[in-house]
Amino acid sequence: MAIANPYLLFLGDAPDQLAAKTADGVARWRRDWCVGQLRLDGCKADLGLPDKSLEEAAAEGARTLIIGVANRGGRFAASWQETMLKALDLGMDIASGLHNKITDLPTVAARAKELGRSLHDVRHPTREFEIGTGDRRPGKRLLAVGTDCSIGKMFTALALEKEMRARGMNADFRATGQTGILIAGDGVSIDAVVSDFVSGAVEYLTPANDPDHWDVVEGQASLLHPSYAGVTLALVHGSQPDVMVMCHEPTRPHMRGLPNRKVPDIQDCIVAHEAAARVTNPDAKVIGFSVNTSAMDRSAAETYLKELSDRFGMPAVDPVRMGVGPIVDLLG
Amino acid sequence: MAIANPYLLFLGDAPDQLAAKTADGVARWRRDWCVGQLRLDGCKADLGLPDKSLEEAAAEGARTLIIGVANRGGRFAASWQETMLKALDLGMDIASGLHNKITDLPTVAARAKELGRSLHDVRHPTREFEIGTGDRRPGKRLLAVGTDCSIGKMFTALALEKEMRARGMNADFRATGQTGILIAGDGVSIDAVVSDFVSGAVEYLTPANDPDHWDVVEGQASLLHPSYAGVTLALVHGSQPDVMVMCHEPTRPHMRGLPNRKVPDIQDCIVAHEAAARVTNPDAKVIGFSVNTSAMDRSAAETYLKELSDRFGMPAVDPVRMGVGPIVDLLG
Repeated sequence: MAIANPYLLFLGDAPDQLAAKTADGVARWRRDWCVGQLRLDGCKADLGLPDKSLEEAAAEGARTLIIGVANRGGRFAASWQETMLKALDLGMDIASGLHNKITDLPTVAARAKELGRSLHDVRHPTREFEIGTGDRRPGKRLLAVGTDCSIGKMFTALALEKEMRARGMNADFRATGQTGILIAGDGVSIDAVVSDFVSGAVEYLTPANDPDHWDVVEGQASLLHPSYAGVTLALVHGSQPDVMVMCHEPTRPHMRGLPNRKVPDIQDCIVAHEAAARVTNPDAKVIGFSVNTSAMDRSAAETYLKELSDRFGMPAVDPVRMGVGPIVDLLG
Repeated sequence: MAIANPYLLFLGDAPDQLAAKTADGVARWRRDWCVGQLRLDGCKADLGLPDKSLEEAAAEGARTLIIGVANRGGRFAASWQETMLKALDLGMDIASGLHNKITDLPTVAARAKELGRSLHDVRHPTREFEIGTGDRRPGKRLLAVGTDCSIGKMFTALALEKEMRARGMNADFRATGQTGILIAGDGVSIDAVVSDFVSGAVEYLTPANDPDHWDVVEGQASLLHPSYAGVTLALVHGSQPDVMVMCHEPTRPHMRGLPNRKVPDIQDCIVAHEAAARVTNPDAKVIGFSVNTSAMDRSAAETYLKELSDRFGMPAVDPVRMGVGPIVDLLG
């Protein structure tokens, strides 16, 4: 798909910061792609970017309007459509991470077609994929995995890419979900792919590459999450990871969306992910932990991470508090 | 979807018996639902059913024309469309197991709408599914699993259902692929479901039931098949099987579609499927083997099955040669 940047981030009339979570991720990881934010009356979110009108953003070279905000009730307000039409008129494409599709808005779709602009509904894959083969490909791959959903796999992969690039390593973040795709400018929302083709979609996303090149692949869900584990397994098989980083949140009371199910033991998660990954890469292993300790004070967090590291003989980091350096040290 | 029977099985101009494989499965397992077969000029397949014209079949009460044959080059010949239109005129619905959709044929779709007939493209799920939860449901479930694709999982499940019913047990075959759906008259082609919803689709397919009721669930692929294992895992989690029967073909040189990959060891398959199944059913276990020994002579087959049974301390049967009685003995 290749979404053109620079971006103008549209926050609409977001009722709070959380509603603008997707835009927030883009601003955090690709600030230099963002000319600013566009907020409508009543918007309660703020990414700390300069507020820009469509005309100002266009004058500064913005090439894509990013709809990075949850809409209310699944509908696009008339005011949003007006903004989209004007962005198209000013020469921008539009990319959206919402479930609802921009391409289903007849007026917007017609205007884009007339003007030759692209509309990217990044949650909805538009190309067809081959069936996966599991054949080995050159290049190296790291996959962020986890004990649960929404536990920092995208953040971890992006932090690893950043640190690897800072050290001059040849690394690319590979996005498998909507926010990641807006951050990478490309990718596949794999949970929206027909199940038969998911491992093939991941093989497409992480193709043969130079021997020193790392794909740093955004993980999805967990092999032990009964709602989505099939997506995870296809991702593990398709990405044939050389190494995996296990993401975890120690204080979570239950698995996401499943109030009656405890977050599984981290050892069980390692066993499950290594066994699965070895189907397509016999050398695959978990090499470290990326832990979200935001609910713990600094001292409790340090104790927890040290104990985890000692228990498994692998680095355990909080990517926000101390960065991912100790994990990247192992990738040399 | 609930496909109405009796059926008339349409074989078209099938170039050989294999092209009519789907219809063959229906004729084998639901002969009493089939008023006959309809063959066009040049058809080389024969299911051993009486040849019937559309008019004859309609007169005998046929309610659905089953397109149970692979079409050449993915297109419906004009002669097929003529047959479909006439079937609709005579009061029949149409069900097809093909990739191409009957509902994409404008003339046929329009005629069906006009007459109020149903068109069932069973490979293409039309309803939406919830996200799976993994919550335990009453009722018992048996899942056919396997070391590879196309290794007898549907056959095994149907043979088990038949034997269980013959013994007065409360059992229903649950279909997860196109041929199974035409045989069951209902089901979900799970490999065509968007990956996020596959375990939920399986939970829908095998809902809460009476404590003595068995869902006998058609398996798909294998957890160790890198092309499709994500589908399998969602099926294992969604069906929360109490027991699994491992299907195998001992002489296969490589995994289906993967010339460079050997069929995995049966012990590894048991470990993988039991570990996965215990995520949603802690008591899940493999209780026996269903082996396709058609490539071996009787004596070699008996030796093989005895050794397999001795090695694992579980019954090992060829469902064609000796039936599945020893496995059903364990389900009392």
